Amino acid sequence: MSDHRLTRIVQELPATVPFVGPETIARFSGVPIQARLGANESVFGPSPLAIAAMQEAAAEAWMYGDPEAYALRTALAKVHGVERENIVVGVGIDGLFGTAVRLFVEPGTPVVSSLGAYPTFAFHVAASGGVLHTVPYRDDYEDVEALAAMANTVDARLVYLANPDNPMGTCWDAATVLKLRDALPADAILVLDEAYCEFAPASAIPVIDIADARMLRFRTFSKAHGLAGARVGYVIGPAELIAAFDRVRDHFGVGRVAQEAALASLRDAEHVEAVVRSVAAARTEITKIAEANGLSVIDSSANFVAVDCGHDGDYARRVLAELGALGVFVRMPGVPPLDRCIRISAGTAEQLVVLAQALPRAL
Amino acid sequence: MSDHRLTRIVQELPATVPFVGPETIARFSGVPIQARLGANESVFGPSPLAIAAMQEAAAEAWMYGDPEAYALRTALAKVHGVERENIVVGVGIDGLFGTAVRLFVEPGTPVVSSLGAYPTFAFHVAASGGVLHTVPYRDDYEDVEALAAMANTVDARLVYLANPDNPMGTCWDAATVLKLRDALPADAILVLDEAYCEFAPASAIPVIDIADARMLRFRTFSKAHGLAGARVGYVIGPAELIAAFDRVRDHFGVGRVAQEAALASLRDAEHVEAVVRSVAAARTEITKIAEANGLSVIDSSANFVAVDCGHDGDYARRVLAELGALGVFVRMPGVPPLDRCIRISAGTAEQLVVLAQALPRAL
Repeated sequence: MSDHRLTRIVQELPATVPFVGPETIARFSGVPIQARLGANESVFGPSPLAIAAMQEAAAEAWMYGDPEAYALRTALAKVHGVERENIVVGVGIDGLFGTAVRLFVEPGTPVVSSLGAYPTFAFHVAASGGVLHTVPYRDDYEDVEALAAMANTVDARLVYLANPDNPMGTCWDAATVLKLRDALPADAILVLDEAYCEFAPASAIPVIDIADARMLRFRTFSKAHGLAGARVGYVIGPAELIAAFDRVRDHFGVGRVAQEAALASLRDAEHVEAVVRSVAAARTEITKIAEANGLSVIDSSANFVAVDCGHDGDYARRVLAELGALGVFVRMPGVPPLDRCIRISAGTAEQLVVLAQALPRAL
Repeated sequence: MSDHRLTRIVQELPATVPFVGPETIARFSGVPIQARLGANESVFGPSPLAIAAMQEAAAEAWMYGDPEAYALRTALAKVHGVERENIVVGVGIDGLFGTAVRLFVEPGTPVVSSLGAYPTFAFHVAASGGVLHTVPYRDDYEDVEALAAMANTVDARLVYLANPDNPMGTCWDAATVLKLRDALPADAILVLDEAYCEFAPASAIPVIDIADARMLRFRTFSKAHGLAGARVGYVIGPAELIAAFDRVRDHFGVGRVAQEAALASLRDAEHVEAVVRSVAAARTEITKIAEANGLSVIDSSANFVAVDCGHDGDYARRVLAELGALGVFVRMPGVPPLDRCIRISAGTAEQLVVLAQALPRAL
């Protein structure tokens, strides 16, 4: 990109994007996707209440959504036992990462995350000119001690942790997360990505403390709520930091249909519970399929399972490609040694039959 | 906002937001809105095809939207006689302004717009540390000669023009827009906001020229397509500049339901034509109502009419408040002398009856 009118930061950004969509993959391969198990979506769908709410709101889509998402924030505050002022709603966690990074990261700001962690956070850090320092995973876990040490070495302002982790599915208990927070430099903020928290044991989720100005909690309706295509995420945190989002966020970004969907889904806790059970069953089934093919899996607390293909990244990439050629869309971690694995999202029974048939052929 | 962890730019940003939503206004006033005529939404609703598409897509909202919006960009390219590579889709024009500003504006970058123009563009410029230079309107038109002069004085990199203009509804012909573009510094880009272009005479819309690297065209499904609550906008421009958006945009920001809605709406040109006719009729009716109350209007090429209340801003603000107390939500320009006007969006016949009854009481 040679256009000299772009900012210096943008001129130096790589042309890579965080993810290639399954639609693009299918378009290039010409193979229709039979089992969409690569994006950690909830194949079990949205709540029927959310579907009905979207269908009802469709005719009202001529109206902007409430830029303050008052009703949704009120409902979320009740769910989490906090005040409305402790919650900001945004266009998914991805969009909220972008906003958060703009609040805290200027050119040269040191930021810490794990090498191979969810790439979209790093994407936004780069776009703001931040300097990302990474530490390797340890035994397929984000290495909280190394994260803390690096944060202190570089005096990080933001430290990213996904708990449960994506792409590995591993999970720390709440005490360990809080220990990481406490070990950070005094001015650092822990960006705690809890996209998959509903699938994790309760003991993994720190109690929400709105007096804690050193941690922001990122949540989403894209996973357990099955609303990835509606684009609603939120951040829970101390009122003063949450208010700062208003200074840079796209106020009308979360549309009317999306807000109604999220609101309705919050009223259907049973659906989320059923999804969590279905995901647990699917994880068990994916494990069985992997083991039947002589592969092992990483214990997962998320809605996917990292399957260890037993060799290096090149081998796993070939397995991934073969699965793709058989209509099974999965993804894999980007860096060694994580990339010995492929990451398979929880599927329906039918999709997992497709997987069970395809995997031995792909290996 | 005193948190020293925020970037220097964010610390200095004002706490104001571009717009207070009608929901917030109604909540504070306790008066339910009977005529929602303040946000330039399309009260005539989305296309029935778009409503049906959203209803059908609702159950599939568990899937992310295609991050490349391939189908939608293909359809838009066909409509506009360009290539897919000339179009980027985003979360409404507001979201796309944010992305565009990040591409071209770094701290200190000079930007030019009109004083009193659509505020969200300026909001994003401020968040990137750009320096906004404004020129006054002239006779309720954006003053293209003054914009060009200021752009050359400060060596602007971005120059904003809405055509038709919001909040005044006035419109330049295409030749004048191109004359402005040609009068800008060689490195400047004209950010041409054409949110209301469907309501304007065809002669106001420059022919799309993808070889033109000095102009980006911002379009939306929020106005004539009646999909403000779905959040879909797009930019048309030269492929190289459009590709740059990929480096910083939120790739999954436009959801699946929204993409389906926009696609379906593109298939219903008749609906858009009917909306344009209804808007024209509503403009005539608003003019009649204004004149019956001794007020004049500014000739509008958009889906709203600026009504000159005949006195100063304080007077117009009182009229606005009185209308609000009577359940009529309208907005008004923010700066003199534009703020002698209130801005009334095209309404249904029923809503305009409410307006006709309320206006004499408010005056």
